[in-house]
Amino acid sequence: MARVAVVGAAGYIGGELLRLLLGHPEVEAVSAVSSRFAGKRVDGVHPNLRSVTDQTFCSADEVSDCDTVFLSLPHRSAMTQIDTWAGRAKQVIDLTGDFRLDDPGVFEQYYGTSHVAPHLLGDFVPGIPELHRERLRGADRVSMPGCMAMAGILALHPLAVRGLVERSARFDARTGSSGSGATAGEGNLHAERSGAMRVFAPTGHRHEAEIARHTGIPTMMTATGVEAVRGVQTIGHVTLCPGVDLSAVRRAFRESYQDEPFVRLVAHRRGTFRYPEPKILLGSNFCDVGFAHDEKTGRLVVIAALDNLMKGGAGNAVQCMNIRMGRPENLGLTFPGLHPI
Amino acid sequence: MARVAVVGAAGYIGGELLRLLLGHPEVEAVSAVSSRFAGKRVDGVHPNLRSVTDQTFCSADEVSDCDTVFLSLPHRSAMTQIDTWAGRAKQVIDLTGDFRLDDPGVFEQYYGTSHVAPHLLGDFVPGIPELHRERLRGADRVSMPGCMAMAGILALHPLAVRGLVERSARFDARTGSSGSGATAGEGNLHAERSGAMRVFAPTGHRHEAEIARHTGIPTMMTATGVEAVRGVQTIGHVTLCPGVDLSAVRRAFRESYQDEPFVRLVAHRRGTFRYPEPKILLGSNFCDVGFAHDEKTGRLVVIAALDNLMKGGAGNAVQCMNIRMGRPENLGLTFPGLHPI
Amino acid sequence: MARVAVVGAAGYIGGELLRLLLGHPEVEAVSAVSSRFAGKRVDGVHPNLRSVTDQTFCSADEVSDCDTVFLSLPHRSAMTQIDTWAGRAKQVIDLTGDFRLDDPGVFEQYYGTSHVAPHLLGDFVPGIPELHRERLRGADRVSMPGCMAMAGILALHPLAVRGLVERSARFDARTGSSGSGATAGEGNLHAERSGAMRVFAPTGHRHEAEIARHTGIPTMMTATGVEAVRGVQTIGHVTLCPGVDLSAVRRAFRESYQDEPFVRLVAHRRGTFRYPEPKILLGSNFCDVGFAHDEKTGRLVVIAALDNLMKGGAGNAVQCMNIRMGRPENLGLTFPGLHPI
Amino acid sequence: MARVAVVGAAGYIGGELLRLLLGHPEVEAVSAVSSRFAGKRVDGVHPNLRSVTDQTFCSADEVSDCDTVFLSLPHRSAMTQIDTWAGRAKQVIDLTGDFRLDDPGVFEQYYGTSHVAPHLLGDFVPGIPELHRERLRGADRVSMPGCMAMAGILALHPLAVRGLVERSARFDARTGSSGSGATAGEGNLHAERSGAMRVFAPTGHRHEAEIARHTGIPTMMTATGVEAVRGVQTIGHVTLCPGVDLSAVRRAFRESYQDEPFVRLVAHRRGTFRYPEPKILLGSNFCDVGFAHDEKTGRLVVIAALDNLMKGGAGNAVQCMNIRMGRPENLGLTFPGLHPI
Repeated sequence: MARVAVVGAAGYIGGELLRLLLGHPEVEAVSAVSSRFAGKRVDGVHPNLRSVTDQTFCSADEVSDCDTVFLSLPHRSAMTQIDTWAGRAKQVIDLTGDFRLDDPGVFEQYYGTSHVAPHLLGDFVPGIPELHRERLRGADRVSMPGCMAMAGILALHPLAVRGLVERSARFDARTGSSGSGATAGEGNLHAERSGAMRVFAPTGHRHEAEIARHTGIPTMMTATGVEAVRGVQTIGHVTLCPGVDLSAVRRAFRESYQDEPFVRLVAHRRGTFRYPEPKILLGSNFCDVGFAHDEKTGRLVVIAALDNLMKGGAGNAVQCMNIRMGRPENLGLTFPGLHPI
Repeated sequence: MARVAVVGAAGYIGGELLRLLLGHPEVEAVSAVSSRFAGKRVDGVHPNLRSVTDQTFCSADEVSDCDTVFLSLPHRSAMTQIDTWAGRAKQVIDLTGDFRLDDPGVFEQYYGTSHVAPHLLGDFVPGIPELHRERLRGADRVSMPGCMAMAGILALHPLAVRGLVERSARFDARTGSSGSGATAGEGNLHAERSGAMRVFAPTGHRHEAEIARHTGIPTMMTATGVEAVRGVQTIGHVTLCPGVDLSAVRRAFRESYQDEPFVRLVAHRRGTFRYPEPKILLGSNFCDVGFAHDEKTGRLVVIAALDNLMKGGAGNAVQCMNIRMGRPENLGLTFPGLHPI
Repeated sequence: MARVAVVGAAGYIGGELLRLLLGHPEVEAVSAVSSRFAGKRVDGVHPNLRSVTDQTFCSADEVSDCDTVFLSLPHRSAMTQIDTWAGRAKQVIDLTGDFRLDDPGVFEQYYGTSHVAPHLLGDFVPGIPELHRERLRGADRVSMPGCMAMAGILALHPLAVRGLVERSARFDARTGSSGSGATAGEGNLHAERSGAMRVFAPTGHRHEAEIARHTGIPTMMTATGVEAVRGVQTIGHVTLCPGVDLSAVRRAFRESYQDEPFVRLVAHRRGTFRYPEPKILLGSNFCDVGFAHDEKTGRLVVIAALDNLMKGGAGNAVQCMNIRMGRPENLGLTFPGLHPI
Repeated sequence: MARVAVVGAAGYIGGELLRLLLGHPEVEAVSAVSSRFAGKRVDGVHPNLRSVTDQTFCSADEVSDCDTVFLSLPHRSAMTQIDTWAGRAKQVIDLTGDFRLDDPGVFEQYYGTSHVAPHLLGDFVPGIPELHRERLRGADRVSMPGCMAMAGILALHPLAVRGLVERSARFDARTGSSGSGATAGEGNLHAERSGAMRVFAPTGHRHEAEIARHTGIPTMMTATGVEAVRGVQTIGHVTLCPGVDLSAVRRAFRESYQDEPFVRLVAHRRGTFRYPEPKILLGSNFCDVGFAHDEKTGRLVVIAALDNLMKGGAGNAVQCMNIRMGRPENLGLTFPGLHPI
């Protein structure tokens, strides 16, 4: 039985971590750290946890030794607090962007600031079970990928690693409003954000650097906020290498994901939900992946969908903790999603 | 371990029954009966069940003896098929409106047709654990209440049974689009139904008769479809009897529900989610109940919210099955809901 | 040709006033006053006005004499600034709550503060053309009703003035998020407000006092925020007086509204849009009114819908200005609304 | 004053044509043709037209000579009915896909059927004022582009015609549900379509052929249905030719559109609505166009947004009629859109 702490527990990913960890059969205690809400009831901020917990938030100082600490903080906070938390927890799972890129130069380019702990970048194992399962079994430092990056990586990696596609990818990513976090701002006001198709990053979104890192394919991404609270979908446009046909593509995806507990191949001829779509994944840890081929041009469209707070955040982090604990990966993560919703 | 069947398994409540029963630790086999989709894969209709089940729908004829059968059919179908299913299952849990009212005359008034099996009306125990738990322990015939009725009953019953309110109630009920079922029609087209505030039953909604039956209070209900897929909220307006003060109201709710696993009292002074709201209940079996008092007039507003497919349908039915099995009521029903969503 | 000023022009009702007045054939100049955005472009705040105007916001000091000034300010600001604006404009149209109630005691009860200019309350004509057209023709001080009040008043007044209903009304009001204004707060964050059914005022909403004032019927209102940006719908429950039948009700509505340019009677037997629904009214100045009768109980449900920023705010104010100018009431207000939307 | 007819007037684009033409200062009579609803009131289908018109739909036979007929029919119906309508109207404006492509082979490839009137393809002038204004002044046969094509063409054409970009474009298009028309189907059911990110055409969408035709640039498009009723947004990824810098791009857009009444350049550094977004365009005839440059790669992202029923359909058709009439292009098209919405 593990003792864990969630730092930044009043945020949206923090709240999902609490929900998952409070219901996790191998977790005996969860500290909910929030500097802003310390002393206040958890279910006052996360009303879905009413009757699930009577806990209050605590301050960082109140957390002593624990097995795993989850850092669900604003970007740039993890790299300044890492020493503190590394001293208190066997495993640190970082959900910020601070340790997602292994090259300090690329980090500076995308985050607009220099890294304050570049010597630690190499200590972090990427929190992508589908790519780094073996390393995660012993990982004391894990860096969770960005939500759109996770979708893009899972859609592209099976093709990239087998050399089936040319070395250039363009992604179009769509995301719900919860990706912007729980802090109110004018752009996030319901009347402004409702029904939006808001291109908030036409170029240069940070997550494109992660896709490039993990697939080895130079990637350009456009990110748009659409009407949804949760949910990410990425559409990738790539070109098949000469001689590669669709059966090789199909085989690549099947080989990569047939034994994965949380990746499903979705590419159907008929039905309403033929391709990956986030709405039926809300609350689940699945990432659905699919593809379609344009015979005229040899181009391939790869599609992935996930819940940004789950497989794109908290759920994926719990999966990584399960791996480190040597327990079944789906422990505490069996909710399959709802239909209709 | 139980063997169960869901009749009408391609519908929305049918799909939720499948989700819950396939994940239920005491259920070993689930037949998914659909006349329209027999032979087709279940996850083709309910895409959230991909990788959860490879089952196909079957026809009614393929179901032999089972422990519990759930009838999730169009209204008026259960009363014509009841003999068939009563012969095949120890317990019949009916989710149609056919056995919700115990008076054939009231049934005819509200359903516009005469009852074809009035002699069986008395055999059915209302599927309301909070009111009929003891009877449900041995109930072989259970009739689940309507979704808006369930919310209204739970909001009003604690006051009604203690004689705290006058004998007249007016309810305003709001519901998402899934309450209209999975059959496409022009009023349910996304472009028409989106953003709607559609008064589909200004007077005479069937569920008002159920509230009246179970509370003993003559009730009038207005029902409006609002923008949501799932979720029901009922606002009831009643008048406190002379001499009744707010502490008596509070005590009534507390006494009624403090030991209930799925009813929570929600009436806060501060915070965004001060009163019951369905969005944080999606997928959960909770019904949240709250109230507010107008000191000027002595009137009381009672508020209830639930997921119409869960505590208003499938979840509540599984809770009733759990009671009949003598098992913990929350078996298979522990999902707490999401925030944000 | 009139010269007008909008004070509080960066808000949502302010923005609609700008849209309507900039397109108004009898308005030659519009000052857009905003203390916060003075010097900034109007279309930076109201992007729908791109290419419509190159204007910038100005400060209050820059406004000299004009024909009509619209005060679209936070509550309690109008009564402190009224002397300033009365000195600069022939006509003051106030859209705050400050002059909506004619009784300072009732004002204090509902607004929680004492009125600072009670001697001026009698100077303001209520901005309800359907009730006060003649007085509005010469009105130099106009106080626009609240959005939910406007809907409730138009639904109830024809019955009240003819003594057809008993002296007690209960209203259930639903509103979109724009009613909360353009200032970001945690409850208005998209992820929190999306899909909401938020009972923000179970009792004692200010607008109930206006309905009571203008109909003479003691009124209780419950207000809920539902998923929509614009739109208000009110459902009123009343009881017909003995001997009053439905034809009298129908006649009352017909007589009251047959010549009204912006009130339509909507109560149909068939079709998707049988009763008043705000979504088809967005951007229009219509208030749709309907009713339904419960023969069993003699109770009547009255239903009204409008766009809270139009007939519930800016549009209604422009209609009042048109009346004062002696011009056709629908000048600049002919947009009929969209379908589908 | 013109006499016009709308064929297919019960559909969504048909309804918008009625709204615009009934409010058009130079139109004296509008026939609303619907085979399905002939004899029924127009406002029963389009409730926003209540009090705007008391007309009923008529059958095709009842239309005699008129100045302009708008064919708002299912694809493949216009090419079979063209002779009929050409005989009754001076000008035929076709809103189907039948005459959008000038090459019968390409038509067959994209529409899966051979063209029945290939000899007439050359008679139709594309209904794109920004590209073909002079030809439209005398055009008796006009073919309106597809909604997503229109957005894509306006975003790409200024660059393509000046040779600033390489000859390959990839588009990602998003659309609301009204683009699927007014016929109910299971995929369009509110509970299924709500909150969707539905990739309904990962490759080979018909509108890509129109973009290719009008820009000369081979184009691939992915089309996704997102949560909205109205609105189209297209994101195009192109590569600047060697030596082309951003100022040339800016100049190209400015030159192309500075005198256009309905195209606005939207590419801001700050603010919530920095790039084109459809929600503030609902009901308006604007197409907003913007771009962003990725300096690292030399790639350019072009963005366009419009209301699919307006500049992507009915509004654009009325603009073309205005051009043919020699009248101001914005006649009857001055509604600027709403904010917030």
